[in-house]
Amino acid sequence: MNRSREQIMEKVKEQMPEKRWLHTLGVMETSVRLAERYCADPVKADLAAILHDYCKYWPIQEQANIIKENGLPQDLLDYDKELWHSHAGAFIAQKEFDIHDEEILDAIRYHTSGRESMTLLDKVVCLADYMEPGRDFPGVHNIREIAEHSLEKALIAGFDSTIGFLLSKGKRIYPLTVLTRNDLLMQVSDN
Amino acid sequence: MNRSREQIMEKVKEQMPEKRWLHTLGVMETSVRLAERYCADPVKADLAAILHDYCKYWPIQEQANIIKENGLPQDLLDYDKELWHSHAGAFIAQKEFDIHDEEILDAIRYHTSGRESMTLLDKVVCLADYMEPGRDFPGVHNIREIAEHSLEKALIAGFDSTIGFLLSKGKRIYPLTVLTRNDLLMQVSDN
Repeated sequence: MNRSREQIMEKVKEQMPEKRWLHTLGVMETSVRLAERYCADPVKADLAAILHDYCKYWPIQEQANIIKENGLPQDLLDYDKELWHSHAGAFIAQKEFDIHDEEILDAIRYHTSGRESMTLLDKVVCLADYMEPGRDFPGVHNIREIAEHSLEKALIAGFDSTIGFLLSKGKRIYPLTVLTRNDLLMQVSDN
Repeated sequence: MNRSREQIMEKVKEQMPEKRWLHTLGVMETSVRLAERYCADPVKADLAAILHDYCKYWPIQEQANIIKENGLPQDLLDYDKELWHSHAGAFIAQKEFDIHDEEILDAIRYHTSGRESMTLLDKVVCLADYMEPGRDFPGVHNIREIAEHSLEKALIAGFDSTIGFLLSKGKRIYPLTVLTRNDLLMQVSDN
């Protein structure tokens, strides 16, 4: 069934602790601002942001089952669990909220890993997730500054911080994240 | 035609400046030592080390042509030129020195990027290239220390330094290097 924006927000809020809900509100606000700044659709950005972490606090086995049982990319299961909620979330957004706009679903689906040839909406939501006002990690101020003039360069800085973090922790790097960063570097290169 | 080890060394020396030849001698010495330490074949390690940088100082267009015209991985040409001499070198080692031992050729071929399921010889030569006595970059002492007890962990530290360097320089990362590091992390994990 179709629900109003407020009904969806209410439902999202129930899925997560207060702190994550505040993060969601931050991503909503930042997504809309970036959408306006970079001529993406602010209504779609808002809806993707509302739903982007829908499954984040679901039991990890449930997230894995959604991926296993619905033909979502199985290679995700070999990598960091942080990647799972994005694909599971896009699947559930479609099923539970009758959202069929592929642009919105993709922005949810790829908000953690990125992908090659990210759409404008993908970029807006992924970057908002890195830099919303509640985020506080080394380099976040730099990302916010770069975001004033380049979506792509700010995203590269975001992915640099993710990859650097995984290096420092001795964790595996999801190959698509590296392909995404490589692709963004090509987009901003002068060659 | 088959040549003696000394004849091959003489020919290699002619292809590069003095400094790189000293590096080659360092990789030879370190490869043999690591081969003995980790039960790889020291004779094969020595020969792969002698030849590993054979094409390194050839004109870059010549390296590219070898890759283009002989069915070597074309995706290399989209990435850092530093990767090209390894594949070109393995090709030339076979053609010019009649070396057909695939273990030796692979160790030359993958000494820069690494690959998934690296052989023992691949690991020895790749790690020797990172840590030979002439190398001096941040982290090299750490790599040498780790190499005393784990080939794989030392290689992970080596690839960490490469990936970190590419991050800091805003350069693209060759996906196979990330797959290699992921694979090595799996090899050393307790799971």
